[in-house]
Amino acid sequence: MEKIGTFDFVTESYLLDFRGRLPLPMIGNYLLHCAGEHARQKGFGFNDMSERSCAWVLSRIAIEMTQYPTMSEPITIRTWVEDVGRLFTNRCFALLDKEGNNIGYARSIWAAIDLETRKPSDLTGIGKLEEYVTNQPCPIDKPGKILPAETGTEGEPYLVRYSDLDVNGHFNSIKYIEHILNLFDIDTFREKEISRFEISYVAEGRYGMQLSLHKKETAPDRYITSICDTEGKAICRAAITWKQNSY
Amino acid sequence: MEKIGTFDFVTESYLLDFRGRLPLPMIGNYLLHCAGEHARQKGFGFNDMSERSCAWVLSRIAIEMTQYPTMSEPITIRTWVEDVGRLFTNRCFALLDKEGNNIGYARSIWAAIDLETRKPSDLTGIGKLEEYVTNQPCPIDKPGKILPAETGTEGEPYLVRYSDLDVNGHFNSIKYIEHILNLFDIDTFREKEISRFEISYVAEGRYGMQLSLHKKETAPDRYITSICDTEGKAICRAAITWKQNSY
Repeated sequence: MEKIGTFDFVTESYLLDFRGRLPLPMIGNYLLHCAGEHARQKGFGFNDMSERSCAWVLSRIAIEMTQYPTMSEPITIRTWVEDVGRLFTNRCFALLDKEGNNIGYARSIWAAIDLETRKPSDLTGIGKLEEYVTNQPCPIDKPGKILPAETGTEGEPYLVRYSDLDVNGHFNSIKYIEHILNLFDIDTFREKEISRFEISYVAEGRYGMQLSLHKKETAPDRYITSICDTEGKAICRAAITWKQNSY
Repeated sequence: MEKIGTFDFVTESYLLDFRGRLPLPMIGNYLLHCAGEHARQKGFGFNDMSERSCAWVLSRIAIEMTQYPTMSEPITIRTWVEDVGRLFTNRCFALLDKEGNNIGYARSIWAAIDLETRKPSDLTGIGKLEEYVTNQPCPIDKPGKILPAETGTEGEPYLVRYSDLDVNGHFNSIKYIEHILNLFDIDTFREKEISRFEISYVAEGRYGMQLSLHKKETAPDRYITSICDTEGKAICRAAITWKQNSY
C-alpha cells in the first residue's frame, strides 16, 4: 500500500512574482491542494470528515525552500502523514524539481473540529488516518511557538475583503501569508530569498474585520510578524528567515 | 489549419471564493494564459515578440459570464484572433462547461510596444498573426470607452505592494480586477453575480505607488470604477454590471 501521495504541477507565468519565481503563497496553495487530495484518496478527505460532522483545521505550517521554481517548471510534491495524536496530526511534504532534486520541505500540523460543538475531535477515532502513518524523513524543524510581534510595534491596518475569503467564508489561510509578505519592501525580495516561513493560525479571520499587521526584526534576517484583531489579540503569528539571494 | 486554440482547466478548491465559485480574477488568469499559449503555439508568443524587441500589452478586456464554474469543474476555453489592425488586434474567447455548453465569452484588445522606444509597433508587420484571423462569432459587445469614476467621488487609498506585481514588475493586470471587486461589499456578492466586467488599462502601475480607488453607480446594478495615481490620473477604468444571483 502506497502511503505517500505524489502530485505534479507546472508553474504558469501568471502565478509568478516580479522575479519570475513561484511565490510562497502559491507554494502554500499547492501544499494544501496536495494535503486535501491525498486525504481524499485515502478516505479521510473533506467529504469523509463532513460525514462525521468534522472538518480539518490547519493549525501550523512551516515551509523551507532551497530553490524556488521559475517559469514553466514542473514540480513534484510528495506528502505523507508522519504521526497521529489525539488532537493533532503531522503531515509532511517534500518538493522536487524536474530532475527529482529536493528543492524544499514543509511540515504542517492539523486538528479536526466537530462542526456542531466547534470543539476539537479525537483523531485516534479516525482509524483510516493511522493506517497511512509512515516514517519517511522530513529534515526540517517542526513549526513551534512564535513570540508576539505586536508588543511595542506600530501595526499596519488591513480590512478583510471579498478576495481574502476562502470557500468556507473565512480569511483564506494562504492570503494571510500574502499580507505578511507585503510587510517587506521590494528590495528585500530583490536581494534575499525566504529560506524558512512558519505560520501559526490562532483564530478565524472574518469579512469586515479591521486587522492590524505587525512585524519585528529579532536578529539579522529573522523576523516575527502577527495579525491582530480589533482588540489587539493575534489571530495568527508567523516567523520568517531570509537568506541572501543565490540566483 | 486549426485557427482556434482550445485549453482545458479544472477548478481547484483553493481558487474558489466564499460562494464556492471561481472568481472573476481567476477567470482572467485563465484567459491570459490561453492568450499567451495560443500565441506561442502559432509563432507570435512572448519569446517570438521578444526577438523582434516587442511585447504584447493588454489594452482592454470584457468578460461576460452566464454561469460561474464551481468546485472541481472542468472548463474549456476556446480562443481566436478576430482581426488585426495596424495598432490593435482583437482576441476573443468562449468558455464552455463540461457538457460543452457556453458559460461565457470574452473579448480582449491588444497592442504591441517596441521595447526600446516604448512606442506602439505596427501589427501588420507581424505576418503570422494575420494567418490566424477567423470570423468565429463572439456575441458580446466590444470593450469601449468608460466614463471617469473619479470625478465627485472619494477615493479609497491603496499602496502597490510585492504581491501586486507581475513577472514584468508592473501592477499585475489581474490584480487590478481583484482590487476593484474588493470595492463591493460582501452582500453584493451574496445576492448578485457579475454579468459583465470590462476593464481598460491606461498606464502602468508600479511598486510603491499610492493609488486611489473610485467607484460610482451609474444605474441600478451598473457601476464604473477607476484606479488613479497620486496626481489623480486614471491608470485604469472598469465598468461592472451585476445581475440577480441565479444559483
